[in-house]
Amino acid sequence: MPRKANAIDLPALGTLDRAAGALGRQLAQTLREAIRRGELKPGELLPSTRLLAQSLQLSRGTVVEAFEQLVAEGFLASRPGAGTRVAATEAEPATAARKTARAQPAALPAPAAAFARVAQQFSTLPHVPFAISVPLGATVPGEAWRRLGNRLRARGEAAPSGYGDPQGALPLRQAIADYVRRSRSVRCEAQQVIVTSGTQQGLYLCCQVLLGAGERAWVEDPAYSGITSILEHGARGAAVRVPVDEEGLDVEAGLRLAPDARAAFVTPSHQYPLGMPMSMARRRALLDWAQRAGAWIVEDDYDSELRYAGHPFPALQGIAAQRVVYLGTFSKVLYPSLRLGYLIAPPELAPAFTGARVLMDRSPPGADQHVLAAFMAEGHLERHIRRVRGIYAEHRRQLMHTLARLLPAELAWLQPSDQGMHLLLWLKEGLDDTQVARQAAAAGVAVRAVSPMFAPGGARPGLVLGFGGFSGEQMEQAARKLARVIRAMAGERQPPGGRR
Amino acid sequence: MPRKANAIDLPALGTLDRAAGALGRQLAQTLREAIRRGELKPGELLPSTRLLAQSLQLSRGTVVEAFEQLVAEGFLASRPGAGTRVAATEAEPATAARKTARAQPAALPAPAAAFARVAQQFSTLPHVPFAISVPLGATVPGEAWRRLGNRLRARGEAAPSGYGDPQGALPLRQAIADYVRRSRSVRCEAQQVIVTSGTQQGLYLCCQVLLGAGERAWVEDPAYSGITSILEHGARGAAVRVPVDEEGLDVEAGLRLAPDARAAFVTPSHQYPLGMPMSMARRRALLDWAQRAGAWIVEDDYDSELRYAGHPFPALQGIAAQRVVYLGTFSKVLYPSLRLGYLIAPPELAPAFTGARVLMDRSPPGADQHVLAAFMAEGHLERHIRRVRGIYAEHRRQLMHTLARLLPAELAWLQPSDQGMHLLLWLKEGLDDTQVARQAAAAGVAVRAVSPMFAPGGARPGLVLGFGGFSGEQMEQAARKLARVIRAMAGERQPPGGRR
Repeated sequence: MPRKANAIDLPALGTLDRAAGALGRQLAQTLREAIRRGELKPGELLPSTRLLAQSLQLSRGTVVEAFEQLVAEGFLASRPGAGTRVAATEAEPATAARKTARAQPAALPAPAAAFARVAQQFSTLPHVPFAISVPLGATVPGEAWRRLGNRLRARGEAAPSGYGDPQGALPLRQAIADYVRRSRSVRCEAQQVIVTSGTQQGLYLCCQVLLGAGERAWVEDPAYSGITSILEHGARGAAVRVPVDEEGLDVEAGLRLAPDARAAFVTPSHQYPLGMPMSMARRRALLDWAQRAGAWIVEDDYDSELRYAGHPFPALQGIAAQRVVYLGTFSKVLYPSLRLGYLIAPPELAPAFTGARVLMDRSPPGADQHVLAAFMAEGHLERHIRRVRGIYAEHRRQLMHTLARLLPAELAWLQPSDQGMHLLLWLKEGLDDTQVARQAAAAGVAVRAVSPMFAPGGARPGLVLGFGGFSGEQMEQAARKLARVIRAMAGERQPPGGRR
Repeated sequence: MPRKANAIDLPALGTLDRAAGALGRQLAQTLREAIRRGELKPGELLPSTRLLAQSLQLSRGTVVEAFEQLVAEGFLASRPGAGTRVAATEAEPATAARKTARAQPAALPAPAAAFARVAQQFSTLPHVPFAISVPLGATVPGEAWRRLGNRLRARGEAAPSGYGDPQGALPLRQAIADYVRRSRSVRCEAQQVIVTSGTQQGLYLCCQVLLGAGERAWVEDPAYSGITSILEHGARGAAVRVPVDEEGLDVEAGLRLAPDARAAFVTPSHQYPLGMPMSMARRRALLDWAQRAGAWIVEDDYDSELRYAGHPFPALQGIAAQRVVYLGTFSKVLYPSLRLGYLIAPPELAPAFTGARVLMDRSPPGADQHVLAAFMAEGHLERHIRRVRGIYAEHRRQLMHTLARLLPAELAWLQPSDQGMHLLLWLKEGLDDTQVARQAAAAGVAVRAVSPMFAPGGARPGLVLGFGGFSGEQMEQAARKLARVIRAMAGERQPPGGRR
């Protein structure tokens, strides 16, 4: 029979902190640790609760409570008339585990390394020019937004509540349907709207719902890395990169490369990152293919509200609502940290998108959905967009002017574009745009290189410059630094005071 | 040469609404529609802008603007000296597409039907007893929560901002790390915390990161359908159902069924839905297997704050932090519509979880993260939990008493449990619990049947009853209705006034 532990044998019991209270819990923790460390061995008999209470100067109830807890947890075993013992186990795996782990770090699961690279690639840019979209000053939704929020959170539908509709709050879905019908000629009802946390979730949901394992999708080349990364790492679907020319997606090339693709991911209003709209002829060819092939078009309309010349193109969805999934976001016209956007599905696919969303995260948060619904219903959103558009138009004009002034056209030139909150600055062939981005970052300027957005082999060097959230002065200073980096990399000497 | 259209040929042009303004846009829309409908044919020459302006009594600038827009969109083509024509296309796919679609509805993509079933299965219960967790009255976070929110949204870190840290706001990750260290003996630092939108997202992320294609995972039988559905429909991983007995997961059975599984999803504090804790012996055996097999344990600790007797079990994570991914949520102790929870990863896996989250939805919304961080840092959360626990303990006691009073023990009996915000009411063998749930719903009572949470073959009938968000009176009334349904289904006659 194993020895009988007594209080004296357990030095750890001396560590009970009487001033801290909760002595029962402290005692249980101490005994637990002693068992884990092997100071108390399986089968070992513990002193009676009466004896232990006496020797520790605790009430007997406190000790009984601690024992009961440890019995419930399986650390101790108690039989009537036979006292309480340390429970039998085959081994001491916890301690062994700790030792082994220290000796040889565990092998990571297969998908982990790829996801870790994604985290690296998407690391947030610092809040300096030319990071895209940091609302600032007059472009932040103002008092109306804040007051509505305070009011609805106190008493209204935005107050704390239970599990909401996974598809999104009905008042917001109605407001979104009204808004896209009016502003984008999208044909839909509220039951086709799925509230998302933004374009990224919309793209993710599309890959989940539209693509079976191994099924292929056309993806523009170049494209937003948010979509290429999902298809690369998301376990479902595969990307076929289809080149973009001055009319947008080259549908003929798509037909040659993968006529049997199940979906096409496109940015027809304002190709990301290049900036041109898709021509009407291409739109028709694309819809024609989708109809013949029974494929789906995902229309990512991420910044159509910010158009500075002419009218915005009407959405593809308005021409073929039954074959197009339309994606929009409030990140650009309100602010990114809101995390609200929308997906408009053909009616027969809306339940599938809702189910896919349920598995990912059940439903969107409640409060901001109701605040946004009221903000839209009361007409604030459209007023806000008009104001923001005016401000951004001025920022854009100013940045274009500054860049043209600071950089010779043979070294860097702007891609023409009428829309959005970024400009694309092409760099002279041979310049390494990722290197430029790194050196710019070191100089306190945030830019994204465009070459990683191309499929391997077709890359051209360029930089994506956001002009959303910065003052003219901030942008002027950043542009000077950027020009210096580009000139230095091109081997040019910086003329004193810049080029005028 | 095709005929030359003139204004008279286009009846739609008569529909311009001069009072509504934006005549250029109206004109462009009218011409666009005429081209789509085939009233204007490819190659057809349009009247000059001068003539059209004259005949429509518009300014010439307005007509020029509309033409330019349609040229940009590809509807029209313009050559200097040769006038403006409807652009050439090979076909009229848009119209054709509409016709075809009407004739034969498109085939749905392969994954769509399964996701649509998920949406059905997870449809939200109405806000009546015994739906789980609708915060009400005293269990809603009160004035402190609201005031903090209003203050931080106006000027603080919760104000509108740009793209946030995909891993979650640092102050919240720090507050969570402090909290789980203190309350659950979880060993972690802020860099191991990934802020999620709740347990569902945590489970989804675990499947993404821990399981390669086709790799298997142990899942409790019965289990929360949120995890079984992900593995069934999520394209990655596969569930091996491992039975649960009175000590929790039967590790020996798991070893027989799938010793090579890559992960185990468990609810060791409070098995869902049955309610027992996992014994210490089983915990050890599970950790031992995980260590030997290099497998990962996902510890879903969804309601450990709500413990009504004894101390909560310390987390598995505290014993083997390097092999356990720990999941917690604020849905139970604050409110579900907040959509905030957390995942504690072994340090070497934190970047992978962050990357997987980036692909799903970039980052959590900003504002509530900062409000919650302040709420926790100022000690409000722990005070709130103490209050909620007291209220729920009383609700629970009352519901247990009411059910025992209204239902004979041979027909329905409660599973013993010390924790959580639901009770499990077992039903007599042979009763169809899904049928009971349907009839209860018709009587205005929301319950979930437990049999669908079992793997096929092993199901036992029972009901999950939430007691979180309802008054004693509401629960009493609902319990009477439920008892009536159960008695009727069992063929018993309802004694007048219920059984006392």
